[in-house]
Formats: sequence, structure tokens, C-alpha cells
Amino acid sequence: MSARENRQVRLTARPRGIPQAEHFSLMTEPVAGPGKGEILVENRYLSVDPAQRGWANDEGNYSAPVPLDTPMRALAVGEIIESNVPELRAGEFVYGWFGWQRYCVATPDAVLRRVVPSALPLSANLSVLGMNGLTAYLAFHGLGDPKPGEHVLVSTAAGSVGSFVGQLARIAGCRAVGLTSSADKMAQAKARYGYQDMINYREAGDLGAAIRAACPDGNDIFFDNTGGAIADAAIRTMRLRGRIIQCGTAANASWTPVPTGPRPEREILTRRLRWSGFIIFDHLAEFDAAAARLAELALAGQIVHDEEVLPGLEHAPSAIARLYRGENQGKLIIAVD
Amino acid sequence: MSARENRQVRLTARPRGIPQAEHFSLMTEPVAGPGKGEILVENRYLSVDPAQRGWANDEGNYSAPVPLDTPMRALAVGEIIESNVPELRAGEFVYGWFGWQRYCVATPDAVLRRVVPSALPLSANLSVLGMNGLTAYLAFHGLGDPKPGEHVLVSTAAGSVGSFVGQLARIAGCRAVGLTSSADKMAQAKARYGYQDMINYREAGDLGAAIRAACPDGNDIFFDNTGGAIADAAIRTMRLRGRIIQCGTAANASWTPVPTGPRPEREILTRRLRWSGFIIFDHLAEFDAAAARLAELALAGQIVHDEEVLPGLEHAPSAIARLYRGENQGKLIIAVD
Repeated sequence: MSARENRQVRLTARPRGIPQAEHFSLMTEPVAGPGKGEILVENRYLSVDPAQRGWANDEGNYSAPVPLDTPMRALAVGEIIESNVPELRAGEFVYGWFGWQRYCVATPDAVLRRVVPSALPLSANLSVLGMNGLTAYLAFHGLGDPKPGEHVLVSTAAGSVGSFVGQLARIAGCRAVGLTSSADKMAQAKARYGYQDMINYREAGDLGAAIRAACPDGNDIFFDNTGGAIADAAIRTMRLRGRIIQCGTAANASWTPVPTGPRPEREILTRRLRWSGFIIFDHLAEFDAAAARLAELALAGQIVHDEEVLPGLEHAPSAIARLYRGENQGKLIIAVD
Repeated sequence: MSARENRQVRLTARPRGIPQAEHFSLMTEPVAGPGKGEILVENRYLSVDPAQRGWANDEGNYSAPVPLDTPMRALAVGEIIESNVPELRAGEFVYGWFGWQRYCVATPDAVLRRVVPSALPLSANLSVLGMNGLTAYLAFHGLGDPKPGEHVLVSTAAGSVGSFVGQLARIAGCRAVGLTSSADKMAQAKARYGYQDMINYREAGDLGAAIRAACPDGNDIFFDNTGGAIADAAIRTMRLRGRIIQCGTAANASWTPVPTGPRPEREILTRRLRWSGFIIFDHLAEFDAAAARLAELALAGQIVHDEEVLPGLEHAPSAIARLYRGENQGKLIIAVD
């Protein structure tokens, strides 16, 4: 077999804060064949995720930082082109930890899910069937315990996870209200993502009053991707026995030193709340079932997904910064060629 | 039937903060017979509880304030001496909302539980079989989900609820460590309440370091009656998927304005915590089963309960202040005569 050239986007400088184009380099190296117990995957689509910021930094986090001069850690979907693993056949498509590169030699534990062929585009495995859709589905249903008629508040409602939470809430018979930061996103969330009302938290002034105006009966579920002042206000609008799902803490850029805020323990007690943390990688065993349900909903047109696909690996280095500037139109994906 | 005289301890002045003797008056009035659908209870023992502070004040709380010039709201155990309710017979003992008075005309919804006759003293229905034992049992098992070998941290461990939580943790096969405020209470909690180690939070200095020293493997369950600085430190010692039970917020005397503290949302997310509020009155339907199990444990000597019984209604007016000064030796109870 002729030698393959592997194009990689490597992390070559350690960012502080949001990774920028200058922290990455495009490199080429020959592809080694898969060894014993390994597969060779040819990536088709690469994911760009907010979590990559944490992976690129070396602050304390819940995963080890990406070593310098290695391909940027990323989820991807690709085709197995050689396999030394009996359970994984060449020609199968898989979703997993294959990094920002064209080819990846991987062991089976890097595979998160086999792609079930369907009429959905392959890139959907990085959006509605990927971490975003899976997070929305498993967190909302697993920790939110939604019941028809309940009221749901979502922070970053037009974002990659929030855009699915609104739709899942509508499908569950709930009334969903979202928070976002622009009139465009408000309109998009109401038109496409299942939200009955939206709040622009940047222009709301008194955030608590704005939430109470949009949610006069209070909220049974708060799906929170931000923490901070939005969470402070939201927790005070919860109904008795409300559930708060902490899925991210984007509002605070740094946790050293720990920022302060109004104490929540009295709200938790008197409203009998249940406030839970959710990290998708605890839920690997539930991925296949959740993806099957999401595929069914997507194929039936009950759930929509927006993707912005950038053509070519050379767009990867600046993609995380683009995401944090909020310029992407839907889930940001890199097409490998 | 000859007229009965009812001695009552009425709330006659509205306290700000802890109710003192001068906020109450001993009054006497003739007892009216029970009307249609009512019972007449002769109280034997009256409960003294920290929650009475909130009931006597008219600040916002989760129950309406006691009206002035009426008997102080209290739990009590007594005998039904006349009944116009088919399901409740004269001669039965009942536990419920009968107030600080000798006689109480009540409707059946004031009865929380019928007393099941046993070898336990009648006063046990206000301690191990009353709100304290029931709170410890239903909160610890219902929200804590304890498993053998797990680590449990308890604030106000020598208190009326904490003294049962340590014992229930030991019975569940857990290792319990408690926080309290004096060497005497530390010794008592270790000798009698199931705690393997105790921390004096007033003398600990760096509370986080003290908890980590006593709980080097971290904590799976934090049973919290205080909130505040103890909760701030404890939450940072939680193990992955730890459970925090918010059962009280005694550390903060006032919530107007809302006090601030270090933000918890990052801890909730990265440790995948579950932080729940518990109020016993949500769990009325579980009282009989929980009391039956607690009686079984108490009769078998697996759970001990300490009571301080003050002889006579005239001790009631100063009893709440005594409780808040920490002078009571076990659950504080008033014997009616």
C-alpha cells in the first residue's frame, strides 16, 4: 500500500484563555499503519467545541491538557479504512476521539459510537447525533425529569446544546423560554428551536424581572450552561421541587480565585430544589439509545439542526476563536477535504 | 361533663430574631368541646424546635407566622379524650399540631401520625419518632442514597437531627464525620451518635484543611443543617457524584439582603454533584413507615436518643432561647404536668 500523508492541526503553543490561530500549526507526517488491536480511521468531519478551550489550556480541569506538538484533541466522524480489531470492520463509519487530522490510528476505546447508516448526512453525527444532541437529550431527560405542562428555562438557548434543549422541551410538552445575547438569535430560537419566548440577557437590565415577566408562573427546570448572574436570577424563579441542570459554567472565565455570588442554599432548601451537574462522558453507555431516538426525531422532522461546515483543515486553527466570538451559524464543523 | 381549664402559652409580642420569655404569656381559658368533625386532645408532651423561631417571626418564610395572642404553634403528643371523628377514637394517642397548651380542639388534618403503642416512652414520639428522627431518616435515605463504605459529613452533628444522621450512617455501613462547636459535643457525638471522627469548626482555623484531614478520601454525602462557610468548605471535599442534602441554613441569621459566598456551580458541574433541599412536611405520607423502622432500631438499641424534659408549661416561654443558646442536653421537651 502506498504511503499516506497525514495532515494534522497540532497545538504548538499553550494559550491562556481562548485558543487563537497562532496556537496551532498545520503539519504533515506519513501515516503509520494500524498496529495490533488498532484501527486506521480516515476522518471526514471534525468537531469544533467550546470545551476545546479547556483542553488546550493547562489550568486544572476535568480532563488532562492536550500535550504540545500533538494533534488538537477533537471529536470526529470518519471511515475505518484498515482494522486489526475483529469487532470493527473496514468500511464502517465511527464517531470518536480522532483529533484534528485526516488520518487517525486509534484503539477501540477512542470509538464512542458506531454510525448507524441513515438518510441523515454524515456530519449530523457531530451535531444532533453528537455531543451536543446527546448532552441535551441525556441531561434534559436524565436529570430534568420533564413532565408535560412544565416550564423550562435555558441559558445559551441558541447555542449548540440549547438549540436542542428547546426542541426536546417542546416535544416533551413543556413550555420553553430561553436566554441569548442578540435579536437575531432570539428570532432564530423562536422560529427553529422550540422556544415560546426569548430574553436578551445583555439588554434585560434587571434579569430577575425579565425572567419573571417571560415566566410568570416560574420554572420547573433550569438548564444552565452559564452559571454566574444568569443562574443567580434563574434560581430565584424556580418553582417548588424544581430541577437545575448544571451543564456548563461559561459565565465565569476564571475560577482562580473562586468568584463570589449570592448564596443559593436558602433557595435550595425552601424551594426543595435539586441541582445536579452533568458531564456527557459519564454517559457513554447511553449513547447508542439516545442517538437512535434523536435520529428518529430528526428524520421525522421533529427536531432540526443547523450546521456551519468550513471546507478544509486550514480553517481549524481559527475556528475555536470564531466560536467564542459567536460568529458561527449553527454547530461549527470542519470538512476534511 | 365538668368544665376543663385550658392552660396555654400564647405568643403575645412579635419577636425580631430569637423568641424570648417576654414574647409569651401564660393564659387560661375554658375548653370548648370538640365540634362536628373535631377531636379534643389532652397534650402530654410539647416539642421545642428551632423552627419555632421562624414561625414566631413575621419575616418571609415557608409557613405563615403564628398570629399574636394565640397558642404558640408546636408539635405535641397527647391523648384523644373526646372524638367526633369516626376514624379517631378516644383513648388513642396522636402526634400532631396541637400547640403549646394542655388541651387542643383539632381537626383530623392536625394529626400527623397515630402513636403505635410500644415499649418506648411516649416522649420518644417527639424525638426519635418525631420530626428530628423522621427528618434524619427520610432526608438521609431519600436524598442521600447511602451505600456501604461511603463517607458522610454532617454539620451540627450533635444536634437534634445530626445526632440521628450519624447513627443512621453507621447502620448503613458508612463512615460518618461530624462538625460541632465544643469538646463536650464532640465527645458525645463520638460516644453516642455513631461518628467516627469530629471537627470543632470554631477552633479548626482553615475549615477546608480540617475537613480534608478528617476525611482524606473526600465525602460522598454531606448532610447540611447550616449552609454558610461550613457548606463552602464541605462542597470542595465532595467526591464525584456526591450528594448534598440541604436540611437547614442555620449559619445565616438573615437572608435580607442575600449574603454572598464562593460560587458553587463549578463544583456542582465538575464533581457531578446533586444538591437537594429537604423539608419534612413534604413527606407526611412516609411518616408511618419511617417511624416504624426508627422504633424497631430504637427498641433494638441500635439507635439512641437523648431528651431533656422540662417539667411544666411554665418552662415553655424561655425554652426556644435556651435551645438557641445550646444549653439543652438532647431534644428539648416540655411535660405538660
